[in-house]
Amino acid sequence: MNASTTWTLAHRAAKMNPSVIREILKVTERPGIISFAGGLPSPRTFPVAEFEAACAKVLTDDPQGALQYAASEGYAPLREMVAAQLSAQSAAAGVPWAIDPAQVLITTGSQQGLDLIAKILIDEGSKVLVESPTYLGAIMAFTPMEPNVVSVESNEGGVDLADLKAKADGARFMYVLPNFQNPTGRSMDEAHRAELSRTAAALGLPILEDNPYGDLWFDQAPPAPLTARNPEGGVYLGSFSKVLAPGLRMGFLVAPKALYPKLLQAKQAADLHSPTFNQRMIYEVMQNGFLDRHVPTIRALYKAQRDAMLESLAQHFPASGDADKDLTWNTPAGGMFLWARLPKGMNAVDLLPTAVDKGVAFVPGAPFYAGAADTRTMRLSFVTPSVEEIHRGVAALAQAIQQHRGA
Amino acid sequence: MNASTTWTLAHRAAKMNPSVIREILKVTERPGIISFAGGLPSPRTFPVAEFEAACAKVLTDDPQGALQYAASEGYAPLREMVAAQLSAQSAAAGVPWAIDPAQVLITTGSQQGLDLIAKILIDEGSKVLVESPTYLGAIMAFTPMEPNVVSVESNEGGVDLADLKAKADGARFMYVLPNFQNPTGRSMDEAHRAELSRTAAALGLPILEDNPYGDLWFDQAPPAPLTARNPEGGVYLGSFSKVLAPGLRMGFLVAPKALYPKLLQAKQAADLHSPTFNQRMIYEVMQNGFLDRHVPTIRALYKAQRDAMLESLAQHFPASGDADKDLTWNTPAGGMFLWARLPKGMNAVDLLPTAVDKGVAFVPGAPFYAGAADTRTMRLSFVTPSVEEIHRGVAALAQAIQQHRGA
Repeated sequence: MNASTTWTLAHRAAKMNPSVIREILKVTERPGIISFAGGLPSPRTFPVAEFEAACAKVLTDDPQGALQYAASEGYAPLREMVAAQLSAQSAAAGVPWAIDPAQVLITTGSQQGLDLIAKILIDEGSKVLVESPTYLGAIMAFTPMEPNVVSVESNEGGVDLADLKAKADGARFMYVLPNFQNPTGRSMDEAHRAELSRTAAALGLPILEDNPYGDLWFDQAPPAPLTARNPEGGVYLGSFSKVLAPGLRMGFLVAPKALYPKLLQAKQAADLHSPTFNQRMIYEVMQNGFLDRHVPTIRALYKAQRDAMLESLAQHFPASGDADKDLTWNTPAGGMFLWARLPKGMNAVDLLPTAVDKGVAFVPGAPFYAGAADTRTMRLSFVTPSVEEIHRGVAALAQAIQQHRGA
Repeated sequence: MNASTTWTLAHRAAKMNPSVIREILKVTERPGIISFAGGLPSPRTFPVAEFEAACAKVLTDDPQGALQYAASEGYAPLREMVAAQLSAQSAAAGVPWAIDPAQVLITTGSQQGLDLIAKILIDEGSKVLVESPTYLGAIMAFTPMEPNVVSVESNEGGVDLADLKAKADGARFMYVLPNFQNPTGRSMDEAHRAELSRTAAALGLPILEDNPYGDLWFDQAPPAPLTARNPEGGVYLGSFSKVLAPGLRMGFLVAPKALYPKLLQAKQAADLHSPTFNQRMIYEVMQNGFLDRHVPTIRALYKAQRDAMLESLAQHFPASGDADKDLTWNTPAGGMFLWARLPKGMNAVDLLPTAVDKGVAFVPGAPFYAGAADTRTMRLSFVTPSVEEIHRGVAALAQAIQQHRGA
């Protein structure tokens, strides 16, 4: 048989690349390595018994419905529950947001929401604004549609509004994670949200708001979503991965009615609908206010682990008084990640092999920048390792930095 | 708040449309209507008890793994199982096909395979060849990448090879369903497959082979896949929806090693990975040769229902001797669909409201044509209604045609 078949790749395929982080994780997945690298929720938080009960119930109550094809929009009771809970959450945070369940689209993880948005909003060369740094998975989801991804200056408090105004012209949307951002763990306070929302509205700039971590707050619930402040001007992405489990791949989006039909068409073309069975399981598990009892246990666990990391960092990296010579880090108020910065002259990518030798892994910050990268930065996840491992891991990191500095 | 946000849709969004069939199904989903319209597997075939056992096992054996993030390629044991089973099936049909599990990508339904292929192989304006008629869901999956979809003349036996040769120049691939095609129920015999494969290879034309129905044969297994005949020249799409259940949204593709990395990158960007839990459930259910016992029961059920439909059609639509005045139909050797053609001068879209009034629904054939449509055609599914309902439904169809002819 002739094997000279001509596979001509689409233009966009050349722009697609393997995840840098995935490649890094492969290197660091040696047995015995303490990993601050992964973005995996702690499996200790998965409500296994409740999933078992939900499975049994779903397959007993209506097995034929649970296993059959279903509507592309998603399971109606789950859409109603999402709309009600998110509306209530936003109102409790001081910004009423009346969400019609007809605006809710169930997605195969919130990652799929990014893919659908990219398909309907990005043309080749379209300007898309992101935080600096931003979630790498979003850049990967946008890339096949060939946008011009532009970084807006960002800091611990949020987005630099002057830079946003300077760059907004012609942008299709700005992508933001206001709560415990991946990779930095940063959050936007109420004043910044109000100002960012007003600025975007005045610019006519749509906001794509990604909120996978919002429920994982440690001391107080975050301010209301950006989308609640101007519902016609934003799409909100949510996820069940961090409060229940990622392995079911269940997320959702809330879109203005003007945009919903096109997102629905994109969804139908992409995978017809998200798994019926999984949607019903999630719905069953969430009955009777389960999340109100369950999520506080996740918060407590992650807070203790963040505290252990902060304590260990303070112990191993005392401030010298010269910021250029110090490892510095932030104090995330929730979520899964902490953002650290190496002393001047050091590079996190170069440090990684030494760290792995010492028995600890992290993700260098550089891949998260769409524009110029701060190569001194690194992302430290505090949720997968135990408190004891966190202490050992930070000690190993200190050794690695010490050795690297000497070299 | 200013609500004048500017949503600029991507160029491709204008080409995306709601599924015509979905819209038709809405009209026909009135209670009491006997539906030959849906493409839904009979829920009586879903192995509920086996799914219950698999759920329990998956959540007992390794709950934390089953609920966690996982590799984008899919669950390794499931990929190995797919590779082994498909290799064995092809060899049994006379064409050895050595599939490396590394070529198998688990997808969120085989629909997602179409989306991934479209992303990496279709540029705006790229020529893509399809059968005439073809699966509407494939056209919908390709559309966001803005191809020029070109129909190749087709008949009961397969693709017109002269027309294929005339149209192949510059085409990115030809999309075919060789087994019990949706919508027509047609199949390609061994001689046609051999010739089509040789022709495509000689033309350097990649084949995208979609095989959701291949296991649903009634009297004998179909010939070996096209892809087995030239593995470097094709991508094969498979599904668990028709042999187990569609509500888990589990499918797979087998790609040449040259193409796999780009498909994997597209997969990762689209939804990170297919649900871990569902992959393990499918794997557990398929242990110990379950499909070898289960699928024959589906075949027997669907064959009996096809026979009932053929019998009822023969009874209600006796041949007059003048083909222009008769309803005609084919005899599918497997699958879910039968293809019928109305007498000359009648149009299936026009007939539908009358049929629904009489209590029966079908899908007009026109939406399945990428090129000029044969508006007399219609798709009749024989798998969802019972034998008794099939007889009543065909009687109602006869009444509708009678009345429509009179009008």
